[in-house]
Amino acid sequence: MNSIQDALFADLYEFTMAACYFENRMFDPATFSLYIRKYGPHRGYYVSAGLEEVLDFLESFQFTPEELDFLQSTGLFSTDFLNYLERLRFTGELFAIPEGRLFFKDEPILEITAPIIEAQLIESFVINAVNLQVSIASKAARCIHAAGGKNLVDFSLRRTQGTDAGMKVARASFIAGFGATSNVLAGKQYGIPISGTMAHSFVLSFEEEIEAFRAFARTFPDRTVLLIDTYDTISGAKKAAEVGREMLEGGHMLRGVRLDSGDFVKLSKEVRRILDEAGLKEVIIFASGGFDEFEIEEVLSKGAKIDAFGVGTKMGVSADAPYNDIAYKLVEYDGRPVLKLSRAKKTLVNRKQVFRETREGKMIGDTIGLRAESHGGTPLLKCMMLGGERLSQPESLQHIRERFRAEFSTLGDPYKSIKNPETYPVRLSPMLEAAQSRTVREVRRRELGES
Amino acid sequence: MNSIQDALFADLYEFTMAACYFENRMFDPATFSLYIRKYGPHRGYYVSAGLEEVLDFLESFQFTPEELDFLQSTGLFSTDFLNYLERLRFTGELFAIPEGRLFFKDEPILEITAPIIEAQLIESFVINAVNLQVSIASKAARCIHAAGGKNLVDFSLRRTQGTDAGMKVARASFIAGFGATSNVLAGKQYGIPISGTMAHSFVLSFEEEIEAFRAFARTFPDRTVLLIDTYDTISGAKKAAEVGREMLEGGHMLRGVRLDSGDFVKLSKEVRRILDEAGLKEVIIFASGGFDEFEIEEVLSKGAKIDAFGVGTKMGVSADAPYNDIAYKLVEYDGRPVLKLSRAKKTLVNRKQVFRETREGKMIGDTIGLRAESHGGTPLLKCMMLGGERLSQPESLQHIRERFRAEFSTLGDPYKSIKNPETYPVRLSPMLEAAQSRTVREVRRRELGES
Repeated sequence: MNSIQDALFADLYEFTMAACYFENRMFDPATFSLYIRKYGPHRGYYVSAGLEEVLDFLESFQFTPEELDFLQSTGLFSTDFLNYLERLRFTGELFAIPEGRLFFKDEPILEITAPIIEAQLIESFVINAVNLQVSIASKAARCIHAAGGKNLVDFSLRRTQGTDAGMKVARASFIAGFGATSNVLAGKQYGIPISGTMAHSFVLSFEEEIEAFRAFARTFPDRTVLLIDTYDTISGAKKAAEVGREMLEGGHMLRGVRLDSGDFVKLSKEVRRILDEAGLKEVIIFASGGFDEFEIEEVLSKGAKIDAFGVGTKMGVSADAPYNDIAYKLVEYDGRPVLKLSRAKKTLVNRKQVFRETREGKMIGDTIGLRAESHGGTPLLKCMMLGGERLSQPESLQHIRERFRAEFSTLGDPYKSIKNPETYPVRLSPMLEAAQSRTVREVRRRELGES
Repeated sequence: MNSIQDALFADLYEFTMAACYFENRMFDPATFSLYIRKYGPHRGYYVSAGLEEVLDFLESFQFTPEELDFLQSTGLFSTDFLNYLERLRFTGELFAIPEGRLFFKDEPILEITAPIIEAQLIESFVINAVNLQVSIASKAARCIHAAGGKNLVDFSLRRTQGTDAGMKVARASFIAGFGATSNVLAGKQYGIPISGTMAHSFVLSFEEEIEAFRAFARTFPDRTVLLIDTYDTISGAKKAAEVGREMLEGGHMLRGVRLDSGDFVKLSKEVRRILDEAGLKEVIIFASGGFDEFEIEEVLSKGAKIDAFGVGTKMGVSADAPYNDIAYKLVEYDGRPVLKLSRAKKTLVNRKQVFRETREGKMIGDTIGLRAESHGGTPLLKCMMLGGERLSQPESLQHIRERFRAEFSTLGDPYKSIKNPETYPVRLSPMLEAAQSRTVREVRRRELGES
């Protein structure tokens, strides 16, 4: 884990609320639900990711003496409360949708039930961890869909928002089906295949472009991809073809060329022709530079001769939807269902479950119900932690990736369209509807004096 | 420092290029320049930030045995090269624009000169560190300008892209003039004032809203800010006024109320009236929920009675410009100026300096010139590292913040407009222009056969 796993990675209000709960001896169980309230632009589904990080954080949650000293130095907290924090561990339960599964707006990705102070203090970390990886896995899944089987490589490291994101983007995009990452550390830490060859600086550091190509081919005779747009793509392609022929004579095969700028449709066709005419039909064309699902779909629909894409910044920051309307909301306290009254921001009360129905191998609709109810379909939220302890070992990334691949193939294409997808049917169970209406009526009566 | 300071935090191509440089005994000094090629939407200036992180990384740069084992396991690298990496440290020099200063498109934020392998291997980390903090400091500066003196608090932690970003957003927004952050860990690590009181969950966990207010006021009698929109803002304001009166009777003062949804202009005026009529003129109105520079300017221009803003997600991910067109480009190798030929993506050759001219206390224009030339104005790039060693101690955040405040006040308002700002004048010195043209001609002749 590379993220900051620190119990002070929290908003101050979590501590001031906790201090007040402590003063008032409020230690009853609270259930918080994490969910996305509204689809981002062109979004119609999300991919669960980030859970492993949450489990890790919860299991090791505790305050160090240095952290407690800092809290004391703020002058906000009583010694009693600080002593209480010193002993505090996370003792609650966690239900969550396993990583790699699809989920939709309003569906709880995870629900935590714990004494209210514990459930409250972990809020910011939990949202932060899940929000990032869900954003990226979902954006990456859209790229995978647009690429229709072409290989995609994560090239985003340099422009992700910070180093933690650099790692998590590699992880989340691999879950969604990317074939490799340029990020060496992600290769080491997550076992993701790593990919990369040369930058423009490499070509520039030699007196002539073709000398740069030859030098690289000498060092990596069996895995050379030549970047050919430093001076002019067509002229670069011709030099690459020349070096490719030289390599063939030496018993090696140029693996590919990379285009990084210009009109990808036109250039890729011309470069393909140059390579083919040189007898280099096996040499692949790799493209990078500003790609995301929209650009990938566009160039492929226009017949670009591109075999694989480096997908960088726009995926790595989810540029068209750099955040989600994601919330971690109290839905039950001491057995009592609770909710905020707000037309725009709906909360669904009580502990819940999501039931997924399939027919003939296709997903046909989800129902959000109460945790306790029986319902048709497969329940998505699994109990992953009880009494503060994980119930199972971390899953392998390959396993999560395979789970995604399998489920994504059961989601119909209209729901996956990268522009204006159809809305996947998600309904509330009659029991949840009833609990919801009852709670709204009761709150309006009590707080607003309505009858 | 919270970021991952790991020498493998790099793109694989940095290592494959390095291996090839090593094979070819290319150890000559290379200069790389980091700069923004194009203004993002409505952007007209940038704030330098992230440098401290870069200095830290460069000074401690080295490979651990475990990292070298991983590199070996890839099968890509020779034992000689791995032995070379084992001994490798950063021995170069760094010129940079100090944190907190303004800079503009095309101007180098930093230039690194080092043996080419060293200068290349650090690429991804350097871009990542500077890109994030520049984005956020610049977005935050725009918010500060829009707020015209109102206090702003960073509320973004939960939705920043990862944990590293959570910390860096607090730091960068403080540099740009934010008064506090909700991020407790940033308070501890950076000494930034921390701020926060209660969430909706707090109100919900009590049987009645007014009981939640009273409980909080008992625990924090001198720093209570009540969140009043859980059920209905006006009804919440009346209850807050009631509790405010009770506090007054007990000799305490309600500090403020917070609005978090709805029509902020209308609601803030009504809430102000309710508070004033209750004799609570000192109680401030704090607003949060979807604010960035555009919303702040809009509500203030419509006369909203808001004293301070919590600025969250949109600032914390720089939502309208979640990445910069930032590049780290080779500009000189072994004394030879180099550049990519590309109309859209200009590189300025050679080691450079930026000269800033002011008149009557106002910035009037910058000139990008060669490092070695003499020119009017103040040179912005300072030598911060020589022979791999820092030349001075880290600056305090307060000092950097003050540097920003002072310089920002010398930038004219037309350049700061949050929509369609005027373009600040940046020109190239005649010597740089000449070096640039000469290099372009020479490259076109050599690589494209032009005469």
